[in-house]
Amino acid sequence: MNKGVREERELVKILDRLGFAVLRAPASGSRTRLDRPDLLAGRKGFIVALEVKTTSRETLYLGEESVAQLLRFSRRFGAKPFLAVKFKRRRKGWLLVEAEGLKRTGKGFKLTLREALRRGLTPEALVTGKLENMFA
Amino acid sequence: MNKGVREERELVKILDRLGFAVLRAPASGSRTRLDRPDLLAGRKGFIVALEVKTTSRETLYLGEESVAQLLRFSRRFGAKPFLAVKFKRRRKGWLLVEAEGLKRTGKGFKLTLREALRRGLTPEALVTGKLENMFA
Repeated sequence: MNKGVREERELVKILDRLGFAVLRAPASGSRTRLDRPDLLAGRKGFIVALEVKTTSRETLYLGEESVAQLLRFSRRFGAKPFLAVKFKRRRKGWLLVEAEGLKRTGKGFKLTLREALRRGLTPEALVTGKLENMFA
Repeated sequence: MNKGVREERELVKILDRLGFAVLRAPASGSRTRLDRPDLLAGRKGFIVALEVKTTSRETLYLGEESVAQLLRFSRRFGAKPFLAVKFKRRRKGWLLVEAEGLKRTGKGFKLTLREALRRGLTPEALVTGKLENMFA
Protein backbone atom coordinates (compact mmCIF):
# COMPACT_ATOMS: atom_id res chain seq x y z
CA MET A 1 0.00 0.00 0.00
CA ASN A 2 1.54 3.31 -0.97
CA LYS A 3 1.85 6.23 1.39
CA GLY A 4 -0.90 8.36 -0.12
CA VAL A 5 -3.38 5.51 0.20
CA ARG A 6 -2.36 4.93 3.81
CA GLU A 7 -2.87 8.60 4.70
CA GLU A 8 -6.22 8.63 2.98
CA ARG A 9 -7.36 5.55 4.87
CA GLU A 10 -6.37 7.21 8.11
CA LEU A 11 -8.71 10.08 7.28
CA VAL A 12 -11.46 7.63 6.29
CA LYS A 13 -11.18 6.02 9.73
CA ILE A 14 -11.39 9.37 11.50
CA LEU A 15 -14.51 10.35 9.56
CA ASP A 16 -16.05 6.93 10.17
CA ARG A 17 -15.51 7.31 13.91
CA LEU A 18 -17.21 10.71 13.77
CA GLY A 19 -20.35 9.08 12.38
CA PHE A 20 -19.85 9.72 8.67
CA ALA A 21 -20.51 7.12 6.01
CA VAL A 22 -17.54 7.42 3.64
CA LEU A 23 -16.99 6.39 0.04
CA ARG A 24 -13.52 6.43 -1.54
CA ALA A 25 -13.12 7.03 -5.25
CA PRO A 26 -11.68 4.11 -7.25
CA ALA A 27 -7.92 4.08 -7.93
CA SER A 28 -6.92 6.24 -10.87
CA GLY A 29 -6.40 3.17 -13.06
CA SER A 30 -10.14 2.62 -13.28
CA ARG A 31 -10.84 6.30 -13.77
CA THR A 32 -13.64 7.41 -16.02
CA ARG A 33 -13.83 10.90 -17.35
CA LEU A 34 -16.37 11.97 -14.78
CA ASP A 35 -15.46 14.51 -12.11
CA ARG A 36 -14.96 13.10 -8.68
CA PRO A 37 -13.44 13.85 -5.29
CA ASP A 38 -11.02 11.56 -3.43
CA LEU A 39 -13.57 11.00 -0.68
CA LEU A 40 -17.24 11.66 -0.22
CA ALA A 41 -18.53 11.62 3.34
CA GLY A 42 -22.06 12.05 4.60
CA ARG A 43 -23.62 12.26 8.01
CA LYS A 44 -27.41 12.41 8.04
CA GLY A 45 -27.54 14.48 4.90
CA PHE A 46 -24.59 16.78 5.66
CA ILE A 47 -22.27 15.93 2.77
CA VAL A 48 -18.60 16.84 2.29
CA ALA A 49 -16.53 16.16 -0.83
CA LEU A 50 -12.82 15.97 -0.09
CA GLU A 51 -9.65 16.33 -2.12
CA VAL A 52 -6.96 14.73 0.06
CA LYS A 53 -3.38 16.06 0.11
CA THR A 54 -0.32 15.75 2.28
CA THR A 55 2.86 17.78 2.11
CA SER A 56 6.20 18.08 3.90
CA ARG A 57 6.45 21.75 2.91
CA GLU A 58 4.71 24.82 4.26
CA THR A 59 2.84 25.64 1.08
CA LEU A 60 0.66 23.29 -0.90
CA TYR A 61 0.14 23.89 -4.62
CA LEU A 62 -2.90 22.54 -6.40
CA GLY A 63 -3.59 22.17 -10.09
CA GLU A 64 -6.36 24.23 -11.64
CA GLU A 65 -8.24 21.16 -12.84
CA SER A 66 -8.18 19.18 -9.59
CA VAL A 67 -9.86 22.07 -7.78
CA ALA A 68 -12.25 22.79 -10.66
CA GLN A 69 -13.47 19.21 -10.75
CA LEU A 70 -13.97 19.12 -6.98
CA LEU A 71 -16.13 22.25 -7.22
CA ARG A 72 -18.11 20.94 -10.21
CA PHE A 73 -18.76 17.57 -8.57
CA SER A 74 -19.82 19.21 -5.31
CA ARG A 75 -22.19 21.67 -6.96
CA ARG A 76 -23.94 18.88 -8.86
CA PHE A 77 -24.07 16.47 -5.95
CA GLY A 78 -25.07 18.93 -3.31
CA ALA A 79 -21.91 18.55 -1.22
CA LYS A 80 -19.66 21.05 0.52
CA PRO A 81 -16.18 20.98 -1.11
CA PHE A 82 -13.12 20.80 1.12
CA LEU A 83 -9.43 20.33 0.74
CA ALA A 84 -8.27 17.87 3.44
CA VAL A 85 -4.63 18.58 4.10
CA LYS A 86 -1.93 17.27 6.36
CA PHE A 87 1.19 19.39 6.80
CA LYS A 88 3.39 16.58 7.94
CA ARG A 89 6.31 18.50 9.44
CA ARG A 90 4.33 21.00 11.42
CA ARG A 91 1.16 19.43 12.61
CA LYS A 92 0.06 15.87 12.95
CA GLY A 93 -3.64 16.23 12.34
CA TRP A 94 -5.80 16.88 9.33
CA LEU A 95 -7.19 20.29 8.47
CA LEU A 96 -10.24 20.75 6.28
CA VAL A 97 -10.21 23.97 4.31
CA GLU A 98 -13.19 25.13 2.25
CA ALA A 99 -12.17 24.77 -1.37
CA GLU A 100 -14.15 27.77 -2.50
CA GLY A 101 -11.85 30.25 -0.80
CA LEU A 102 -8.48 28.97 -2.08
CA LYS A 103 -5.98 31.57 -3.30
CA ARG A 104 -5.14 31.56 -6.98
CA THR A 105 -1.62 31.39 -8.37
CA GLY A 106 -0.70 31.67 -12.04
CA LYS A 107 -1.35 28.03 -12.84
CA GLY A 108 -3.71 26.93 -10.11
CA PHE A 109 -4.20 27.40 -6.39
CA LYS A 110 -2.12 27.44 -3.25
CA LEU A 111 -2.64 26.98 0.44
CA THR A 112 -0.10 27.94 3.08
CA LEU A 113 0.18 26.27 6.46
CA ARG A 114 -0.61 29.64 8.01
CA GLU A 115 -3.83 30.02 6.07
CA ALA A 116 -4.81 26.40 6.73
CA LEU A 117 -4.41 26.96 10.47
CA ARG A 118 -6.50 30.11 10.27
CA ARG A 119 -9.30 28.84 8.03
CA GLY A 120 -9.18 25.09 8.49
CA LEU A 121 -11.45 22.93 10.58
CA THR A 122 -10.44 19.75 12.34
CA PRO A 123 -12.53 16.75 11.28
CA GLU A 124 -14.12 16.85 14.74
CA ALA A 125 -15.22 20.46 14.21
CA LEU A 126 -17.26 19.35 11.20
CA VAL A 127 -19.70 17.65 13.53
CA THR A 128 -19.63 20.03 16.48
CA GLY A 129 -19.98 23.74 17.09
CA LYS A 130 -18.36 25.07 13.96
CA LEU A 131 -20.95 23.44 11.78
CA GLU A 132 -23.56 26.11 12.37
CA ASN A 133 -21.11 28.87 11.50
CA MET A 134 -20.24 27.24 8.22
CA PHE A 135 -23.82 27.38 7.08
CA ALA A 136 -24.73 30.71 8.61
CA MET B 1 -13.46 -4.95 -18.65
CA ASN B 2 -15.84 -7.55 -17.26
CA LYS B 3 -19.53 -7.55 -17.95
CA GLY B 4 -20.65 -6.39 -14.51
CA VAL B 5 -18.37 -3.37 -14.73
CA ARG B 6 -19.67 -2.54 -18.20
CA GLU B 7 -23.30 -2.69 -17.05
CA GLU B 8 -22.48 -0.52 -14.05
CA ARG B 9 -20.78 2.08 -16.24
CA GLU B 10 -23.83 2.18 -18.45
CA LEU B 11 -25.93 3.09 -15.42
CA VAL B 12 -23.35 5.70 -14.35
CA LYS B 13 -23.67 7.36 -17.76
CA ILE B 14 -27.46 7.43 -17.57
CA LEU B 15 -27.37 9.04 -14.12
CA ASP B 16 -24.74 11.51 -15.28
CA ARG B 17 -26.95 12.55 -18.19
CA LEU B 18 -29.82 13.08 -15.78
CA GLY B 19 -27.76 15.62 -13.86
CA PHE B 20 -26.44 13.43 -11.04
CA ALA B 21 -22.86 13.54 -9.82
CA VAL B 22 -21.91 9.89 -9.41
CA LEU B 23 -19.20 8.13 -7.42
CA ARG B 24 -18.40 4.43 -7.95
CA ALA B 25 -17.04 2.35 -5.10
CA PRO B 26 -13.50 1.01 -5.57
CA ALA B 27 -13.09 -2.53 -6.98
CA SER B 28 -13.50 -5.22 -4.37
CA GLY B 29 -9.73 -5.82 -4.29
CA SER B 30 -9.19 -2.57 -2.45
CA ARG B 31 -12.15 -3.12 -0.18
CA THR B 32 -12.00 -1.95 3.38
CA ARG B 33 -14.33 -3.25 6.00
CA LEU B 34 -16.59 -0.21 5.81
CA ASP B 35 -20.10 -0.52 4.43
CA ARG B 36 -20.61 0.90 0.99
CA PRO B 37 -22.94 0.85 -1.98
CA ASP B 38 -21.85 0.12 -5.58
CA LEU B 39 -22.79 3.67 -6.62
CA LEU B 40 -23.62 6.86 -4.84
CA ALA B 41 -25.39 9.51 -6.89
CA GLY B 42 -26.45 12.99 -5.87
CA ARG B 43 -28.36 15.75 -7.57
CA LYS B 44 -28.55 19.00 -5.65
CA GLY B 45 -28.77 17.24 -2.33
CA PHE B 46 -31.09 14.40 -3.38
CA ILE B 47 -28.88 11.38 -2.72
CA VAL B 48 -29.38 7.78 -3.81
CA ALA B 49 -27.20 4.82 -2.80
CA LEU B 50 -27.36 1.97 -5.29
CA GLU B 51 -26.61 -1.73 -5.20
CA VAL B 52 -26.30 -2.72 -8.87
CA LYS B 53 -27.44 -6.14 -10.13
CA THR B 54 -28.22 -7.78 -13.42
CA THR B 55 -29.86 -11.14 -14.01
CA SER B 56 -30.98 -13.36 -16.90
CA ARG B 57 -33.65 -14.94 -14.71
CA GLU B 58 -36.98 -13.64 -13.54
CA THR B 59 -36.12 -13.60 -9.86
CA LEU B 60 -33.12 -11.96 -8.29
CA TYR B 61 -31.77 -13.25 -4.97
CA LEU B 62 -29.75 -11.03 -2.70
CA GLY B 63 -27.58 -11.92 0.26
CA GLU B 64 -28.62 -10.70 3.69
CA GLU B 65 -25.39 -8.79 4.21
CA SER B 66 -25.32 -6.94 0.89
CA VAL B 67 -28.74 -5.46 1.62
CA ALA B 68 -27.94 -4.83 5.28
CA GLN B 69 -24.81 -2.87 4.43
CA LEU B 70 -26.65 -0.80 1.81
CA LEU B 71 -29.25 0.14 4.41
CA ARG B 72 -26.65 0.93 7.09
CA PHE B 73 -24.57 3.07 4.74
CA SER B 74 -27.64 4.95 3.53
CA ARG B 75 -28.97 5.65 6.99
CA ARG B 76 -25.64 7.07 8.10
CA PHE B 77 -25.00 9.06 4.95
CA GLY B 78 -28.47 10.44 4.52
CA ALA B 79 -29.14 8.69 1.21
CA LYS B 80 -32.15 6.83 -0.16
CA PRO B 81 -31.22 3.13 -0.68
CA PHE B 82 -32.16 1.49 -3.98
CA LEU B 83 -31.51 -1.74 -5.75
CA ALA B 84 -30.73 -0.95 -9.41
CA VAL B 85 -31.62 -4.01 -11.42
CA LYS B 86 -31.62 -5.03 -15.04
CA PHE B 87 -33.61 -8.12 -16.00
CA LYS B 88 -31.74 -8.81 -19.17
CA ARG B 89 -34.10 -11.18 -20.93
CA ARG B 90 -37.31 -9.31 -20.36
CA ARG B 91 -36.56 -5.66 -20.32
CA LYS B 92 -33.67 -3.63 -21.55
CA GLY B 93 -33.74 -0.75 -19.13
CA TRP B 94 -32.79 -0.32 -15.50
CA LEU B 95 -35.33 -0.38 -12.70
CA LEU B 96 -34.67 1.21 -9.33
CA VAL B 97 -36.45 -0.48 -6.47
CA GLU B 98 -36.47 0.90 -2.94
CA ALA B 99 -34.32 -1.43 -0.88
CA GLU B 100 -36.37 -0.98 2.25
CA GLY B 101 -39.35 -2.91 0.89
CA LEU B 102 -37.56 -6.03 -0.39
CA LYS B 103 -39.14 -9.40 0.38
CA ARG B 104 -37.28 -11.69 2.74
CA THR B 105 -36.39 -15.29 1.94
CA GLY B 106 -34.76 -17.76 4.34
CA LYS B 107 -31.23 -16.57 3.72
CA GLY B 108 -31.68 -13.06 2.37
CA PHE B 109 -33.97 -11.18 0.04
CA LYS B 110 -35.55 -11.65 -3.34
CA LEU B 111 -37.02 -9.48 -6.05
CA THR B 112 -39.14 -10.81 -8.89
CA LEU B 113 -39.41 -9.17 -12.30
CA ARG B 114 -43.10 -8.70 -11.62
CA GLU B 115 -42.51 -6.84 -8.37
CA ALA B 116 -39.71 -4.77 -9.94
CA LEU B 117 -42.07 -3.66 -12.73
CA ARG B 118 -44.71 -2.75 -10.18
CA ARG B 119 -42.53 -0.97 -7.63
CA GLY B 120 -39.52 0.12 -9.65
CA LEU B 121 -38.73 3.55 -11.01
CA THR B 122 -36.84 4.24 -14.19
CA PRO B 123 -33.73 6.37 -13.64
CA GLU B 124 -35.58 9.20 -15.41
CA ALA B 125 -38.45 8.98 -12.92
CA LEU B 126 -36.00 9.76 -10.11
CA VAL B 127 -35.73 13.30 -11.39
CA THR B 128 -39.26 13.89 -12.62
CA GLY B 129 -42.78 13.52 -11.29
CA LYS B 130 -42.31 10.45 -9.14
CA LEU B 131 -39.83 12.21 -6.94
CA GLU B 132 -42.45 14.04 -4.92
CA ASN B 133 -44.39 10.84 -4.31
CA MET B 134 -41.34 9.10 -2.97
CA PHE B 135 -40.95 11.67 -0.25
CA ALA B 136 -44.60 12.23 0.46
